[in-house]
Amino acid sequence: MATSVLRRVVVVGTGLVGTSIALALRANGVEVSLVDHEPAAVAMAVRLGAGVAMADHDPPADLAVIAVPPSAVVAVLEDAQDRGFARLYTDVAAVKGRLIGDARRRGCDMVGFVPGHPIYKTTSGSARADLFHGSAWVLCPEEETCPGAVEMVEVLVRLCGAEPVVMTGEIHDRATAHSLHVPYLVSSAMAAALVGVDAEVRRLVGSDVRDVTRLAEAEPADLIEALTHNAKWVADVLSGIAADLVEVSAALQLCGTGDLSFVGQVTDLLHRGNEGRRALTACGLAPDQGTS
Amino acid sequence: MATSVLRRVVVVGTGLVGTSIALALRANGVEVSLVDHEPAAVAMAVRLGAGVAMADHDPPADLAVIAVPPSAVVAVLEDAQDRGFARLYTDVAAVKGRLIGDARRRGCDMVGFVPGHPIYKTTSGSARADLFHGSAWVLCPEEETCPGAVEMVEVLVRLCGAEPVVMTGEIHDRATAHSLHVPYLVSSAMAAALVGVDAEVRRLVGSDVRDVTRLAEAEPADLIEALTHNAKWVADVLSGIAADLVEVSAALQLCGTGDLSFVGQVTDLLHRGNEGRRALTACGLAPDQGTS
Repeated sequence: MATSVLRRVVVVGTGLVGTSIALALRANGVEVSLVDHEPAAVAMAVRLGAGVAMADHDPPADLAVIAVPPSAVVAVLEDAQDRGFARLYTDVAAVKGRLIGDARRRGCDMVGFVPGHPIYKTTSGSARADLFHGSAWVLCPEEETCPGAVEMVEVLVRLCGAEPVVMTGEIHDRATAHSLHVPYLVSSAMAAALVGVDAEVRRLVGSDVRDVTRLAEAEPADLIEALTHNAKWVADVLSGIAADLVEVSAALQLCGTGDLSFVGQVTDLLHRGNEGRRALTACGLAPDQGTS
Repeated sequence: MATSVLRRVVVVGTGLVGTSIALALRANGVEVSLVDHEPAAVAMAVRLGAGVAMADHDPPADLAVIAVPPSAVVAVLEDAQDRGFARLYTDVAAVKGRLIGDARRRGCDMVGFVPGHPIYKTTSGSARADLFHGSAWVLCPEEETCPGAVEMVEVLVRLCGAEPVVMTGEIHDRATAHSLHVPYLVSSAMAAALVGVDAEVRRLVGSDVRDVTRLAEAEPADLIEALTHNAKWVADVLSGIAADLVEVSAALQLCGTGDLSFVGQVTDLLHRGNEGRRALTACGLAPDQGTS
């Protein structure tokens, strides 16, 4: 297999992820051209050393990274391909299946497009070259995707210090529902149960609850967009969890009448929980990494 | 207020909590007599330096700590009071309201009994003198409880390095439902959702999920006993959470048909989650402590 060489990359969207990728590439001597619909964001990234602003007459780069919010990816990809930003394309959105379908329906070139999703520990910090160090970076090539395109994106992933993991968009989206979207919703429901509760009750609540409600600090707008793209799998996973909790709470309500049927139901749930937890700890790809 | 002096304490039950209390008392020069229905457990605690085995002819101690599982507390308390182990009594069970009612119905002396619950970070380690350092230790005296008894137990709490917090059994039990029992059930339901899922999906699941499913490692038997004593409040809190999740998952299921009504529902849930999380971080008693 010939080694692909990345000489110049265009990064479209200079937010946390785009700028961090650009910084990692610059640290490896790759030329980076930056584009954003907000000129101030490009200027900021340039000041951080992430590359130079893209010029109209630039020749096509080896690769363009579309690092914009999920709902904007397809339109931005189409525009970038029309204008010939690069020979090959990838994106970084946390949802894949629906985005891939939309891109195909919209008539994007799918041969040179490798859908991607870098996974990193959720952070509120600013862009940095090592954001993806030691993380998994999912790539979801379709049947028609050119193998050379996948190879080129894998070079980018490794320059960012991450490990490429190839899987289908569907598997990716189910994993994201389990690992990110459902935990956000459940965490929020648990934190919501604390609204209106006596301050005296809340005073006693310790770090166990702090752990399980941490995700409830997230910005609603970000999650709503992701859910719109991943609703099917999230509904699938969440409805099973909700059904378990409805059943257990109904059984517990009967406990006051001396009906101890909850014991069987709760024991079953807890054993399944033990089993799921064991499966999780047995096969994590990146034990110290979160998913974003 | 005269300072109560603890000269000798009887610890009934030499598990993690009982032995840790005994070690803290010994470190402060208090005499400790140990009792357990398993002689080997007493011998082990004696070897750890937690005190001496109680002898039949011992005079009543200043205080007896009943450190046995919740469902055994009332019978053990009654027996200890009958045999005159001490002048005053306290317990360490994580459930209070139902236990207090049972003790009163059983005819225990309620004047000299101070129901208690030391809170400490969940741990799988062995007994140690500093287990309760910096933690809250809830005391739930009833109307008839003698103030001198409360004062004496507060001395014990402080010798263990903890902070006494007085509240009603009902407030305590609602707090425990929020802080421990409900998180266990929800955590288990989330982990249970991972049973039978493709290994490829589980490989991608990161530390966010590890945090929210950590409690699913617990032993079912321990939780079942606690739930039996606190079913009312757990059902109350859990049914609200389950209802939120049922509603959101039903709305998400409609999203595939282009119905975006989930946006309003999810936004509402996430905002309530933000609010509950803010309330939690604003008024924690012991930010670095869990509840057990």
